[in-house]
Amino acid sequence: MERIQIISNHLVAGEINKQKSQPIATDFFDFDGLLTEKELLIRKKAEKFAKEEINSLNINEYYERAEFPLPIIERLKGLHWVGANIKGYGSPEFTSMELGLVSMEFAKSSADVATFFTILLNISMLPIYYSGSEQQKQYYLPKMASLEKIGAFGLTEPEAGSDAAGLKCTAKQLPNGGWILNGEKRWIGNAPMADIIIIWARNVDTNKIHGFILEPSKVVSGDQLKIETLQKKFAFRSVQNGHIFMKDCFIPESQRLPGAKDFNSGPGKCLFLTRIVVGWIALGVASNAYEKCLQYVKQRNQFGQPLAQFQLVQERLVKMCSNIQAISLMCHRVSQLFDLGKLTSGQVGLLKAFASSKGRETVSMARELFGGNGILLDDIGRNFVDMEGIYTFEGTYDVNTLVAGREITGLSAISSQQIKK
Amino acid sequence: MERIQIISNHLVAGEINKQKSQPIATDFFDFDGLLTEKELLIRKKAEKFAKEEINSLNINEYYERAEFPLPIIERLKGLHWVGANIKGYGSPEFTSMELGLVSMEFAKSSADVATFFTILLNISMLPIYYSGSEQQKQYYLPKMASLEKIGAFGLTEPEAGSDAAGLKCTAKQLPNGGWILNGEKRWIGNAPMADIIIIWARNVDTNKIHGFILEPSKVVSGDQLKIETLQKKFAFRSVQNGHIFMKDCFIPESQRLPGAKDFNSGPGKCLFLTRIVVGWIALGVASNAYEKCLQYVKQRNQFGQPLAQFQLVQERLVKMCSNIQAISLMCHRVSQLFDLGKLTSGQVGLLKAFASSKGRETVSMARELFGGNGILLDDIGRNFVDMEGIYTFEGTYDVNTLVAGREITGLSAISSQQIKK
Amino acid sequence: MERIQIISNHLVAGEINKQKSQPIATDFFDFDGLLTEKELLIRKKAEKFAKEEINSLNINEYYERAEFPLPIIERLKGLHWVGANIKGYGSPEFTSMELGLVSMEFAKSSADVATFFTILLNISMLPIYYSGSEQQKQYYLPKMASLEKIGAFGLTEPEAGSDAAGLKCTAKQLPNGGWILNGEKRWIGNAPMADIIIIWARNVDTNKIHGFILEPSKVVSGDQLKIETLQKKFAFRSVQNGHIFMKDCFIPESQRLPGAKDFNSGPGKCLFLTRIVVGWIALGVASNAYEKCLQYVKQRNQFGQPLAQFQLVQERLVKMCSNIQAISLMCHRVSQLFDLGKLTSGQVGLLKAFASSKGRETVSMARELFGGNGILLDDIGRNFVDMEGIYTFEGTYDVNTLVAGREITGLSAISSQQIKK
Amino acid sequence: MERIQIISNHLVAGEINKQKSQPIATDFFDFDGLLTEKELLIRKKAEKFAKEEINSLNINEYYERAEFPLPIIERLKGLHWVGANIKGYGSPEFTSMELGLVSMEFAKSSADVATFFTILLNISMLPIYYSGSEQQKQYYLPKMASLEKIGAFGLTEPEAGSDAAGLKCTAKQLPNGGWILNGEKRWIGNAPMADIIIIWARNVDTNKIHGFILEPSKVVSGDQLKIETLQKKFAFRSVQNGHIFMKDCFIPESQRLPGAKDFNSGPGKCLFLTRIVVGWIALGVASNAYEKCLQYVKQRNQFGQPLAQFQLVQERLVKMCSNIQAISLMCHRVSQLFDLGKLTSGQVGLLKAFASSKGRETVSMARELFGGNGILLDDIGRNFVDMEGIYTFEGTYDVNTLVAGREITGLSAISSQQIKK
Repeated sequence: MERIQIISNHLVAGEINKQKSQPIATDFFDFDGLLTEKELLIRKKAEKFAKEEINSLNINEYYERAEFPLPIIERLKGLHWVGANIKGYGSPEFTSMELGLVSMEFAKSSADVATFFTILLNISMLPIYYSGSEQQKQYYLPKMASLEKIGAFGLTEPEAGSDAAGLKCTAKQLPNGGWILNGEKRWIGNAPMADIIIIWARNVDTNKIHGFILEPSKVVSGDQLKIETLQKKFAFRSVQNGHIFMKDCFIPESQRLPGAKDFNSGPGKCLFLTRIVVGWIALGVASNAYEKCLQYVKQRNQFGQPLAQFQLVQERLVKMCSNIQAISLMCHRVSQLFDLGKLTSGQVGLLKAFASSKGRETVSMARELFGGNGILLDDIGRNFVDMEGIYTFEGTYDVNTLVAGREITGLSAISSQQIKK
Repeated sequence: MERIQIISNHLVAGEINKQKSQPIATDFFDFDGLLTEKELLIRKKAEKFAKEEINSLNINEYYERAEFPLPIIERLKGLHWVGANIKGYGSPEFTSMELGLVSMEFAKSSADVATFFTILLNISMLPIYYSGSEQQKQYYLPKMASLEKIGAFGLTEPEAGSDAAGLKCTAKQLPNGGWILNGEKRWIGNAPMADIIIIWARNVDTNKIHGFILEPSKVVSGDQLKIETLQKKFAFRSVQNGHIFMKDCFIPESQRLPGAKDFNSGPGKCLFLTRIVVGWIALGVASNAYEKCLQYVKQRNQFGQPLAQFQLVQERLVKMCSNIQAISLMCHRVSQLFDLGKLTSGQVGLLKAFASSKGRETVSMARELFGGNGILLDDIGRNFVDMEGIYTFEGTYDVNTLVAGREITGLSAISSQQIKK
Repeated sequence: MERIQIISNHLVAGEINKQKSQPIATDFFDFDGLLTEKELLIRKKAEKFAKEEINSLNINEYYERAEFPLPIIERLKGLHWVGANIKGYGSPEFTSMELGLVSMEFAKSSADVATFFTILLNISMLPIYYSGSEQQKQYYLPKMASLEKIGAFGLTEPEAGSDAAGLKCTAKQLPNGGWILNGEKRWIGNAPMADIIIIWARNVDTNKIHGFILEPSKVVSGDQLKIETLQKKFAFRSVQNGHIFMKDCFIPESQRLPGAKDFNSGPGKCLFLTRIVVGWIALGVASNAYEKCLQYVKQRNQFGQPLAQFQLVQERLVKMCSNIQAISLMCHRVSQLFDLGKLTSGQVGLLKAFASSKGRETVSMARELFGGNGILLDDIGRNFVDMEGIYTFEGTYDVNTLVAGREITGLSAISSQQIKK
Repeated sequence: MERIQIISNHLVAGEINKQKSQPIATDFFDFDGLLTEKELLIRKKAEKFAKEEINSLNINEYYERAEFPLPIIERLKGLHWVGANIKGYGSPEFTSMELGLVSMEFAKSSADVATFFTILLNISMLPIYYSGSEQQKQYYLPKMASLEKIGAFGLTEPEAGSDAAGLKCTAKQLPNGGWILNGEKRWIGNAPMADIIIIWARNVDTNKIHGFILEPSKVVSGDQLKIETLQKKFAFRSVQNGHIFMKDCFIPESQRLPGAKDFNSGPGKCLFLTRIVVGWIALGVASNAYEKCLQYVKQRNQFGQPLAQFQLVQERLVKMCSNIQAISLMCHRVSQLFDLGKLTSGQVGLLKAFASSKGRETVSMARELFGGNGILLDDIGRNFVDMEGIYTFEGTYDVNTLVAGREITGLSAISSQQIKK
């Protein structure tokens, strides 16, 4: 008996601090201790909003029905948090860290809402900010920041996914002004409900890439523009992804973004912040899966003891917790580097690949520990399937890996023939 | 052609910073940027020492012959860096962060030397510091800090490995003063060359655990004490591990550590700093394996191009680099928490388990990329096999996992019957 | 140029056989070559049925709507394949190998249909066969074999999942004949549409476990029996799982299975065949995911070449293919052992754990390679989410692992306290 | 108490067969039941030889000293088992299955001896058999079969490892007969002790690849040929690998293999059987690690119970056992296909990649379970480090994966530019 006591002591060995009453995923290493006062305030406000305004929405019902929870839009208006890291134009002027913290907290309640908020609302303003005329900025950005107008970012095409720069949509300049767009865009988040869609297309005459601010409501004829909502997704069921068909779709010159001249100065420029945010969303989703799982295994008894007491269960809990600590420290560091103006594409690629793959590992273990109950579209179910989307969007795992790999080695592993020339 | 150019641009997308000329493992996320000026100075001094004083030792030769590189002792004396985080007694009064940085840098050159330095020299002073009398401290600690006396920590036994607290060595108090020790200690690092060995033993009368400062040179009869060097290790070949046999070995009362009364106040108290340091050593070993591997795959051509240009190679490089970033951020955070007096046993257990398992994954990939040349006892060979020791010593992966798991769940998965009572 | 030719030759080295025109997952090692003539015939007939009768059902539509594809019942009747390995009573008298092959082929088209067919129809007959009276057998088994009556197996309870033997439903024998059932059953496949449900309950007087043939249509009062269909599952959406509430539910003595006296002679006895079949279903699902993925990556171009030509893609294809070969060889061997009367519980536990975990790994890689299109509830989407159910039902991965572990070590890792006594 | 009894019964559920008294790795699925009578006889004879003749050699001592256990040569002579699957010329005329079984049994005792026997002795005869003149065959093959002459296979070069076909050694035909060889060969097993080394070199005039039977003892001048033994390997320490330096080394025309005209008809042709055998060696090494580990964890107590009773330990045992079953079934199937004349290069590539990677996973878990004792160069230590060699030699994991991937997809992922042309 005493011997066992000693064993027990051995394991807690050392200068033991008082046990935390409620161990929380992202707080296992006192994550809050890394934040500035302002950041902490924003994180807590976001947490409160998520717990009160998102959780009360019956997210799971919308999810099962594959509907977007429209009431969230009114609730978001009250925050005045849309505007990414834009200076002015009604933006809250967040750092990437602040935007990341908000994304993470929202994602704990719903990855769909977090994605809608941070990528579809916040980051969709960047193309206009980076490449728009002053007039375009003054007209559109404040309306987007106030959620008066909902935006979408139309880059991906049916045949250009990972290879986004290989886009085939065309823009033909008319002799007497304006443009004619042709082609398809696919997987465009928000497209079915957007007031504004940034369309990236290739100038048939110059082969350059242009961006256009398309307002679906202003397209004269239904033949010119059709937007179908993608059906039967098993993940991100509440996010509305559109398949856009443009057939001789006219758009006036005034809607072209004058600053976008190629992939890099156009769509590419937005990918930094997007990929950082996806890292934070992965963190939020994984954290929620872990916390819900921890509660579950502590409450559920099998074979006469809590699941949480089995070695196989604890091993997975510790792996999940380790992953979450690693992701959170990495998100924090990468946001720091971005906010210092130091971030490289390889660094953000590595973050995205790491956070989403470790996040995937984490939700997979959490779902497993829920047993049969883990195939219900409750939190754990949503976390599990949504992580598949996170793992794939904004650059698949492979693409982000090879972006980082190129920076590490100085060699591209995609187009070797090219490099030799 | 232009198309390929565009693809290429896409992948570097965004506000690209100037490529680092020489990407370095632990610096991929600008690790140095996290350090204080003093920490950075110490890290650089340690790096310089390692490159000049350790690398010039023909470490691989000693390793093949399973010998300890004795000349390192003289060289270490010049640093005046022995003394762990002890206050006074000739110690440099390092924080755990500073000790960790030194460990990491030494480990890049030799895990054996790093282990000798940080665990066997620095941390072996802690038992006397924590549990010794003032007289013992004043006599022994400065001599150990100056390397005049080499110490060892005699805890593990043939039948008490993970279950270190289940130790069976006995101490019997003699009626007219002094003690008689009996039993065996195994795997005791430095034991064959130590001037001082702390022996932990169980009082046969009270069942309490006592610590004794054993000086082998002062034991009168060879029958009382035998120390065999463990042979035919494939890892940590240069570290001299001893098997200690004590048979009615007399030790005077003055050599007993008066402050050690049980496992917790005795050997257990030292485990915090040890496990942090092991995390840093794992980081150093993994970093070196990665850096050497990166050099190798950039230089070696197969099938008409550098290995570094193959996708399968880049994927592994990125995984290695990711692991190293995660380990380094976690070591950094855990040392911060320790230095703030906030660290719990679960946190350090998680660090040790994470750092050594991700380190193991890392060296395994690095070794693989070296192909046939990766089975030579060059840096990569040593890194690979030494990581096995790191994975196992100072608490196996499983033990550290269950220590963390207990803190997370509040339940012990080892002795369930105990907890129920 | 010639050099490259040589490289190329090197890689195909050896006595190269003519390339298979269409490499097929389960046939990469000529799996058909392992089958007897009769087995091959059955496999091909099942394959034909699946391709013609299951694929034409718009499985994905039913799945999205979480409905069972009822027309399959009529189509299945034509096969006369229901009856497991039962001798007589209208059974086709399949070996476990034959039943496994059919399961695999069905599962390629739909894991839901395969589960309905093999577990819910075939294996649900076993309790009556093993434990029923001759009268019960003659009355029920032919009706079940001809699909006139649909069965269900009511074992799992809200608080007894992995620990199935810890069931809490009670059966109280009435003084003047018949029984009163109380309690809940959860996750019972087919329950909402079943004519017959085998209910396992604990005799409140003797603590023994009895089985009852419950016919919902014959229960007099709606208060006694309620069956709710589980909603919002993300996997096995077409399988109808019921939550059964019994409140003083009367059942006559004639409906009790006289042969079932405890867990082992009752529900436990059926688990062998179930777990073998689950192995084969995992194989079918993984095979289909692999085959669909292989087609996809060969057709889809990105960065100017088929995805199938990228190293990272090929590595995953080879891992998937390896997994499928290993699972198929193991299913084959385990069925052989069962049909020889030699199978142990540890062997079948190991098979279930291995097949479902490697199957999980396989569909996860396949889904990844589909990129964004991999989150649609097309074949790949269903394969991905259904594998989660497969991984968990009929004993979770952990339970099956510990069943195998107990056989390997002779020690139970679940109830250590028990063993010591 | 009764409840626990029931749980216990549940877990063993079904028709339980008598527990095997001594579960053995490769026999968990009754592997012997798959063998023909002759195969079983050979396997048992090989097992007996390994246990008696190899185990008695103090393999670990030779290993530590990096020496080859020369006495094994005399012992092997008695078997009359050298000759691969060659017809006639003193060969035992083994099938690949029989050779595989012998390799596996030898590898359980020593991977070094198994490699020496099966690859260096048996398979090194194939070049002469495939490409030699009748005179060469009649002179050399019987001497090699009787171990009168020891052979070696000189293909790999310092700069041509995975890309073996890119060899740079040159052969220049002299005007008045004979050849002049120049260049280096590296990693050539047995070279330092071989009587015969097959040297593959490129004809400087025709660029074709020729093979030569080099007999070091007949080279007139020491300047022409130097063979250094590779030092400081951490794996396969007993296998003697040579680095061969040839400088204007003369060799008569009569020593050229007339049948070898290019890579394919020369060295490539031997790779099929080599890679099959390596699969079997991986199986033997993994099996031994598992068996030794199982014994260890059953005997060693920690925390008051056998290690074998901990869940974390059982999980690893089951994974190891699963791997071994999968490898053994795959080796068996691939040997069947080879012996039927049906094997393709993709199939054997997949086997080699699978067996060695799962073997690696297995020994890694076994070593871990040995804790500190697992870093001794005992069986477990040797198994662990030798598996690294196995994983890499005869085509690295990546090369074999891409060979299989090419067969699966019909596309080469190494030289894409080539295929397009």
